Amino acid sequence: MKIAIVGAGPAGSLLSCYLAARGHRVDVYERRADPRRYDDAEGRSINLGLSARGVKALTDVGLMADIWPLTVPMRGRAVHGPDGKVAFHPYGNHQEEILHSISRRDLVVSLVAHAAGAGVAFHYDTQLSALPEADVVVGADGAFSTVRTLMGRGARADFRQEYLPWGYKELTIPHMPVHHEALHVWPGGDDGLIVTHPNLDGSATATLFLPYDTLAAITDPEAFFARRFPDALALIPDLAKEFAERPVGHLVSIRTAPWHHDGHVVLIGDAAHAVYPFYGQGMNSALEDCTVLDACLAEHPDHPAAAFAAFEGRRRPHTDVLDELSRQNFVELRERVRSPLHHARKRADLMLARLLPGRWVPLYTAVSHTTTPYADALARAKRQDAVLRWTAAGVAGLAVVAMFARKVR
Amino acid sequence: MKIAIVGAGPAGSLLSCYLAARGHRVDVYERRADPRRYDDAEGRSINLGLSARGVKALTDVGLMADIWPLTVPMRGRAVHGPDGKVAFHPYGNHQEEILHSISRRDLVVSLVAHAAGAGVAFHYDTQLSALPEADVVVGADGAFSTVRTLMGRGARADFRQEYLPWGYKELTIPHMPVHHEALHVWPGGDDGLIVTHPNLDGSATATLFLPYDTLAAITDPEAFFARRFPDALALIPDLAKEFAERPVGHLVSIRTAPWHHDGHVVLIGDAAHAVYPFYGQGMNSALEDCTVLDACLAEHPDHPAAAFAAFEGRRRPHTDVLDELSRQNFVELRERVRSPLHHARKRADLMLARLLPGRWVPLYTAVSHTTTPYADALARAKRQDAVLRWTAAGVAGLAVVAMFARKVR
Ligand SMILES: Cc1cc2nc3c(=O)[nH]c(=O)nc-3n(C[C@H](O)[C@H](O)[C@H](O)COP(=O)(O)OP(=O)(O)OC[C@H]3O[C@@H](n4cnc5c(N)ncnc54)[C@H](O)[C@@H]3O)c2cc1C
Ligand SMILES: Cc1cc2nc3c(=O)[nH]c(=O)nc-3n(C[C@H](O)[C@H](O)[C@H](O)COP(=O)(O)OP(=O)(O)OC[C@H]3O[C@@H](n4cnc5c(N)ncnc54)[C@H](O)[C@@H]3O)c2cc1C
Repeated sequence: MKIAIVGAGPAGSLLSCYLAARGHRVDVYERRADPRRYDDAEGRSINLGLSARGVKALTDVGLMADIWPLTVPMRGRAVHGPDGKVAFHPYGNHQEEILHSISRRDLVVSLVAHAAGAGVAFHYDTQLSALPEADVVVGADGAFSTVRTLMGRGARADFRQEYLPWGYKELTIPHMPVHHEALHVWPGGDDGLIVTHPNLDGSATATLFLPYDTLAAITDPEAFFARRFPDALALIPDLAKEFAERPVGHLVSIRTAPWHHDGHVVLIGDAAHAVYPFYGQGMNSALEDCTVLDACLAEHPDHPAAAFAAFEGRRRPHTDVLDELSRQNFVELRERVRSPLHHARKRADLMLARLLPGRWVPLYTAVSHTTTPYADALARAKRQDAVLRWTAAGVAGLAVVAMFARKVR
Repeated sequence: MKIAIVGAGPAGSLLSCYLAARGHRVDVYERRADPRRYDDAEGRSINLGLSARGVKALTDVGLMADIWPLTVPMRGRAVHGPDGKVAFHPYGNHQEEILHSISRRDLVVSLVAHAAGAGVAFHYDTQLSALPEADVVVGADGAFSTVRTLMGRGARADFRQEYLPWGYKELTIPHMPVHHEALHVWPGGDDGLIVTHPNLDGSATATLFLPYDTLAAITDPEAFFARRFPDALALIPDLAKEFAERPVGHLVSIRTAPWHHDGHVVLIGDAAHAVYPFYGQGMNSALEDCTVLDACLAEHPDHPAAAFAAFEGRRRPHTDVLDELSRQNFVELRERVRSPLHHARKRADLMLARLLPGRWVPLYTAVSHTTTPYADALARAKRQDAVLRWTAAGVAGLAVVAMFARKVR
């Protein structure tokens, strides 16, 4: 089959590797410049947290060996308190339960190099505004997918696009003094949030998330940091300059249906399901899409329409759940103070996971450190929550009974 | 101010009357032909239920006197059972609590004639694909608004579009033998639904709503009717022909935000908030928009941006609620059988409305027969529901107490 992929981001580049391995003729069209030829196509370094699902998708096509050296392990979350104290929370009970920070450009260059070696043709500086000629067109062109717009023209399509009223800016931490191998978080409540990912050279990229109103009101970023995130201020020497120069990024959640049209066009990655970035699963789910779509195409080699329907049927329920989870984790990440009950629940959850390895899996673990489909992970977490609630009620009930028993005696 | 309105449906035509009355220079652009010159621009008669909100909006600009003669009262709902029996349920306890069936074309022609008399310029056969030149552009161009697309370009906008998996066809009942002054319903459960509105000439227009799968599977419409809606079959002599010739209509719900841009563009009616038609409030809320927007423009005569922000702030919470209510009423209308509890509640609700006139207002009454803003109507209904539930619990509790009291005695 002649397959055209629009977009050479993580999803489009990885899918081209899968399809080339099946012997298809693949062309990839990308509006940006070739990242192999330009040192810093973005003018800045974007890095992302790679987790179990992404690792699995890259492993399945034999690429992970090349990619490991490009990653920095993140062994846990380093939470910066308002008092400047840093609390380190490991991601899991096991050695393998960690995340991996990788630069978007390093990842994509590695995928593109592999795909090009397998015969995939990449066409850079090519922004498509009409569907290319091919047996199958894959829209891997991100949240504002042109392929999605062209495909849906005239047909009934459900669609939901929602912006978070928060924007973000990327800032540079040249040297992270403590816990380099961690994801750092400055939870700022309703006033903002900083998250950092480490880079190979010992630096880290900080993403400052702020409500638009707050962002618009900042005239002196250093004064703002001194007030809200004093210990982060010291880490970002170029704050004023970067704050002024870097664009504001927007955060959008997108759901759309159907994901395919007429056995000819199909969407993957952010084009099909963009989520808020607070669970760190956008790229991971985009990479996972490639494995599922590849399997569906292999199951229906002569019937793309059936393959695409199977892909959407198998995948959309899970990415819908991921959308919900990503919204909820926004609250989780930015909350500064929390009820003792919440802490007790979290601790019980982790303790049970240690006591019942493989049989009790906290939600965060299932999402980030396993490849259990998202909806199944959520369903399991709900069952576990019910057990915790009943147990708590049971313990309280026993205490009451004991009290009565004492009185009676 | 020079104001351009895109779309001469119910919303655009009525708004032009309001704005002309305030002395603005108004141009209206409409892609269809002038309905005053062509007898049947649509090739078919579409009629709609006008209720209190629409009546109020038309009255406020002095138009209702011209429109009353074009309407047929609908005094209640005539529900056709599977056995062919027809049960008539009056819409309310009062003489005024009725709906009014009106042909879309008659309504629009009346509004356009009035507006043209007041100096509004109508440009027919003019489909806009760019914003027209004007101080203010009003997008009254319906659910698939071009103005909305142009206005949102590049800016952050929340958007949700959802198709019901049901389509519809309009069919003709030349003569309705019983209850001409009623809205007839054939509740078909999950298999379909027929709703009819009366016309001035004694005929009625039937709208057949069906799941797409059912619709696609019908090869012989008469056989289908004989099976599902036997007593409706006899009323539609041209069934086979009309079923084959009439297009399938789609049902879409749309929410979007913001409704305005830069003090220059604003959306009203279906362009801002399209709902499923099962509460019969789409046009009524579109007409109500005109009153609210007119009031906001009058409050901020020199500051359209403030007027539009006030309009959206005052209006969107209510049309969001209407969207919910319209979804729920789909279930209400098509359900064939219902629990005795539901019936008991409904009866209690109506009885209390009779006992406490003006103080107890059932939800349907508040939505259809008053101009209480939709969200306020819903909030009141929720309070009333709570009272009903507590009362029921209280009665049950008293019964238990009485039982114990007997035993003890
Ligand atoms: C602040 C932030 C932090 C994030 N952190 C994480 C994280 O830690 N972990 C994680 O898993 N995910 C994260 N994500 C999400 C992740 O970035 C995305 O989910 C991922 O990039 C999606 O990959 P994609 O290939 O589907 O789309 P994209 O990465 O958007 O790639 C689409 C490509 O298509 C190209 N394109 C678009 N239109 C056209 C056109 N018309 N013609 C030709 N080419 C076109 C674009 O130039 C682009 O290269 C984060 C996102 C944000 C915003
Ligand atoms: C089956 C059905 C039954 C319904 N029953 C009821 C009911 O009983 N009661 C009720 O209140 N509502 C009912 N409605 C809803 C009602 O029809 C709509 O809410 C109402 O028509 C909205 O009015 P509008 O003026 O905002 O948009 P529309 O009526 O859609 O008018 C938009 C106008 O803009 C024009 N236009 C579009 N694009 C352009 C362009 N680019 N350039 C120029 N002109 C353009 C169109 O030709 C059209 O004339 C029903 C709807 C359906 C589908």
